[in-house]
Amino acid sequence: MSDLPKSIHIYEQGPREGFQFEKGAIPTERKIELVDALSDTGLNHIQVCSFVPAKNVPGWADAEEVANRFNRKPGVRYEALSLNAKGLERIIANGRFEVTGNISLTASEKFLLRNQKRTLKENYDAQHQMIDIYKEHGVPVERGSIMAAFGCNFEGDIPIERVLDMCKQIFDLAAEHGLNIKNLSLADTMAWATPLSLKRVVGAVRDKYPDQELSLHLHDTRGMALALAYAGLEMGVATYDACVAGLGGCPFAAHKGAAGNICTEDLVFMCDEMGIETGVDLEKLADAARLAEEIVGHDLPGQVMRGGTLKSLREKARLAA
Amino acid sequence: MSDLPKSIHIYEQGPREGFQFEKGAIPTERKIELVDALSDTGLNHIQVCSFVPAKNVPGWADAEEVANRFNRKPGVRYEALSLNAKGLERIIANGRFEVTGNISLTASEKFLLRNQKRTLKENYDAQHQMIDIYKEHGVPVERGSIMAAFGCNFEGDIPIERVLDMCKQIFDLAAEHGLNIKNLSLADTMAWATPLSLKRVVGAVRDKYPDQELSLHLHDTRGMALALAYAGLEMGVATYDACVAGLGGCPFAAHKGAAGNICTEDLVFMCDEMGIETGVDLEKLADAARLAEEIVGHDLPGQVMRGGTLKSLREKARLAA
Repeated sequence: MSDLPKSIHIYEQGPREGFQFEKGAIPTERKIELVDALSDTGLNHIQVCSFVPAKNVPGWADAEEVANRFNRKPGVRYEALSLNAKGLERIIANGRFEVTGNISLTASEKFLLRNQKRTLKENYDAQHQMIDIYKEHGVPVERGSIMAAFGCNFEGDIPIERVLDMCKQIFDLAAEHGLNIKNLSLADTMAWATPLSLKRVVGAVRDKYPDQELSLHLHDTRGMALALAYAGLEMGVATYDACVAGLGGCPFAAHKGAAGNICTEDLVFMCDEMGIETGVDLEKLADAARLAEEIVGHDLPGQVMRGGTLKSLREKARLAA
Repeated sequence: MSDLPKSIHIYEQGPREGFQFEKGAIPTERKIELVDALSDTGLNHIQVCSFVPAKNVPGWADAEEVANRFNRKPGVRYEALSLNAKGLERIIANGRFEVTGNISLTASEKFLLRNQKRTLKENYDAQHQMIDIYKEHGVPVERGSIMAAFGCNFEGDIPIERVLDMCKQIFDLAAEHGLNIKNLSLADTMAWATPLSLKRVVGAVRDKYPDQELSLHLHDTRGMALALAYAGLEMGVATYDACVAGLGGCPFAAHKGAAGNICTEDLVFMCDEMGIETGVDLEKLADAARLAEEIVGHDLPGQVMRGGTLKSLREKARLAA
């Protein structure tokens, strides 16, 4: 129990993830409303939108408009997603985002072939090109990420050795280009992890790279997200991607009707109650989660926004005593 | 990681819990259909129905009919719930159930006053009477349970000392009546537990009663159920109440629209994938979960029934390789 971190950093990705996959158009105003509500919760790292071709992701045809009009709150780091040089250039031209380069590898070649039409080798080579593009634009490259690190719907289980090899490739690429990877993300892209396999993979990476800051990207497709986050906390991992109300999902992984990313407010609740600081006001975040539900017009998976926090119940109990 | 049990025992309570709280009448035939489907999954302990006054729980007005007509599968232990002597007599008269007596205490007096209109002292005294009634009917009293062991919506946090005192009271009662408590259940009745507080409470009980078999009754009201079960597994707890599809909920705890009990198939999935035996066929159980959803006519919280198991994906991946 002594390995639990004292505080965690949350990278909120609800707006970008959620609005990407919702059916039907969501008004630009309402997207901005959610981003602004999140900025007011104490979250200090928010992924706002996605600069991808509108023909591929119609939900983000209005990325520039959202980008231009949300309120930038001091102290909050705002990012946008791009998947190629063109998207990156749009983000930089927009000028309202912090930009960090990412060396992104995928542990499953079958997933990579479906998702990006590249072999492992082609994807590795493509990272060289992306690093050059980041450099041209003066963007620091400080992140690495490994998708499908815990298993793949199309390839099956992913051996730990493969994940370690991906880590090595990322650090080799970084060394070759004189980069410093501040954070390495392990993504359970298709929800294959269990708390035990997560501990094994994180443990193996930790053994080899003891000083490397790690982050986890978790999905709740099989109901494991909070259990996985707890296992991550027990391993001392202190950075988590999360989506308010549990917005989002992976469109490439054949998960019809399945849940999306780990829910931010449920994660904050767990941390709060275990004495792990998040910097987030849970009541305000639960309000933002209910707003997200109202905006998308259907139930979302988050539980705390429905079940309620304990703070208000404690206060009531104290007053009644 | 080495403390994970090799196998767990699941006490399935979905039919009893679920049909108790659903709005609108569910046909008797369909209740029986779910019980029979569950019997076919490998689950070997099922709580079928509730013998309580129909005016209090209209959903179980047909308890006798369900009891008389479900198929008893050899090797499965079937139980029914009762809350007083009259209910117990109905169960015994029905004759189709295994019956075990339970010494039931509650760690929160405020909850007890609301829920059963008794003080802690009155509830303790009432256990003497219940034990006498069990004995009159030749029912072995082999279980103890502590409700609200992790916190209470009306009283707030529950000190560990209180839980230990409740344990002592249960063992005192047992000793006085010459009983052997084979299993002691800690119930997170109002979903206050976190993995950390669960470990602390279980650890404290374990320290004092190292040889006592423990079980956990967990709710998912705040999204913690699977994380709590994982924490319980890490503490070596090997018996869990669970509800197929996440059916159920607590009507007394002011949880409007909130989730019910820990979902059986999500728990089985987590155990299966971590190498912990459950004796359950997960594919059949996921079918039963989808049947439960069809019967109640609305979405239920379970994830694996939607996200799918990994076994079939592994098989597909193997065939494609």
